[in-house]
Amino acid sequence: MLAVGKELLIGRTLNTNAYWIGRRLARMGSMLKEVTVVDDDIDEISAALRGIAARSPEFLVVVGGLGPTPDDMTLKGVARWLGVPVRRNPGALGMIRRHYAKRGLAAMRLTPARIKMSMLPAGSEPLPNPVGTAPGVRLDAGKMLVYCLPGVPVEMRSIFRNSIEPEVRKAIGKMHRKYITLKLEGVFESSLAPSIAQALHRHPGAYIKSHPRGIREGVSQIELDIAVVGEERKRTEDEGERIAKEMAGEVERSGGTVRRLSVPRG
Amino acid sequence: MLAVGKELLIGRTLNTNAYWIGRRLARMGSMLKEVTVVDDDIDEISAALRGIAARSPEFLVVVGGLGPTPDDMTLKGVARWLGVPVRRNPGALGMIRRHYAKRGLAAMRLTPARIKMSMLPAGSEPLPNPVGTAPGVRLDAGKMLVYCLPGVPVEMRSIFRNSIEPEVRKAIGKMHRKYITLKLEGVFESSLAPSIAQALHRHPGAYIKSHPRGIREGVSQIELDIAVVGEERKRTEDEGERIAKEMAGEVERSGGTVRRLSVPRG
Repeated sequence: MLAVGKELLIGRTLNTNAYWIGRRLARMGSMLKEVTVVDDDIDEISAALRGIAARSPEFLVVVGGLGPTPDDMTLKGVARWLGVPVRRNPGALGMIRRHYAKRGLAAMRLTPARIKMSMLPAGSEPLPNPVGTAPGVRLDAGKMLVYCLPGVPVEMRSIFRNSIEPEVRKAIGKMHRKYITLKLEGVFESSLAPSIAQALHRHPGAYIKSHPRGIREGVSQIELDIAVVGEERKRTEDEGERIAKEMAGEVERSGGTVRRLSVPRG
Repeated sequence: MLAVGKELLIGRTLNTNAYWIGRRLARMGSMLKEVTVVDDDIDEISAALRGIAARSPEFLVVVGGLGPTPDDMTLKGVARWLGVPVRRNPGALGMIRRHYAKRGLAAMRLTPARIKMSMLPAGSEPLPNPVGTAPGVRLDAGKMLVYCLPGVPVEMRSIFRNSIEPEVRKAIGKMHRKYITLKLEGVFESSLAPSIAQALHRHPGAYIKSHPRGIREGVSQIELDIAVVGEERKRTEDEGERIAKEMAGEVERSGGTVRRLSVPRG
């Protein structure tokens, strides 16, 4: 994922889009591999895209910078990276026109700022934006599918669900995930470390990670996350439960207490 | 900034550390140029570091992955990137020992998991962690200063304030920033775009960015941020005020209303 926007770099806006996309993909049994955040700047955007493309992801989602204002320059950055021009896309222009028409604003002129949102890199396809003006963009860059989405969370989410998730699901097949969070008290993370190492050795591919939550009334607090992803639901769930039982046993033997969160953190 | 941790990629943890560091630097008149987030994986960490170093930042802050558990592998990734070994650092080991002693845990053995937190890339210097166990790390990588900080927010913040901010301040000198947020109603972002473009032309170097906040009771809502950074306080403040006045005038002339937020968003 490439997130574009100075507001993310100056502590104006929390990157909840990366959080949401990561969560969504993880729950599908896939995974967000990397996030980069850059400023609204064509050179920075195209340089970041070159770097990401060199690592050959299957999918790349670019979020932010599709709007009508001068700082919205993501599509120009994508075009520069690909070495193609931006062109007025009739499909995108139709979507923008219908967006205003639906809101009873048919009389609104298609000013340059509005037409700007229909200027897509040559060879790309507009994606309908059911809740906002700027269409999303899909383009096939060799072995990598690239999607560009507006940064407004409600618009990003809507286009992601409608236009990206079906393609990701097709690529990964049906996967199951078991996620468990244990709340541990009275054990230090450094004391837990060898048990985690052993459990990871017994369960290769599993995810077991401790998150220290400070000391409360002199007692160390830890959240321990366990995740297993697999093709078969029962096997995946059983393995998750087995790891949780093993880890709980270790913690209790070393004098700590264990409580399972009814809603896991992942 | 390089943030390390699978929890940031699976929607388990919001990257509040990037938000905090970005905000802190912006308020000093500096700026976070780029954020990358990668998984707990030595290859991913070292590859990301190579990519970042190629863009020659003055400072690089690496956050997360300094703890005692097997997934904490940031310092090994840094060492691989630099082509140096990790070595037990006596200064770091002393800090870890004193941390346990201060908490009345002097009897706790320095197990391998605890000693691990003192294994630093050769040539680096430990930074005191006043609120947790794992020391921070500072190292001079040619023209770039690299800092590694634990991912636990309270620890990251404490080391950042004590050990990084003084060096950043020295590098940038005394800078002033004026940040203003205007709440606009009844104007579309696409109608505002030409006024922003003109204001940016009149005030090169200023930051003027609109954040759409949806439609409430049929009325478009926008937050407009204006920021100016400069060496002289009065000039910087005056320029910010001038831009705000110009933008408010434009919005009112086109039929919108303007309210200034007493606490700007930046």
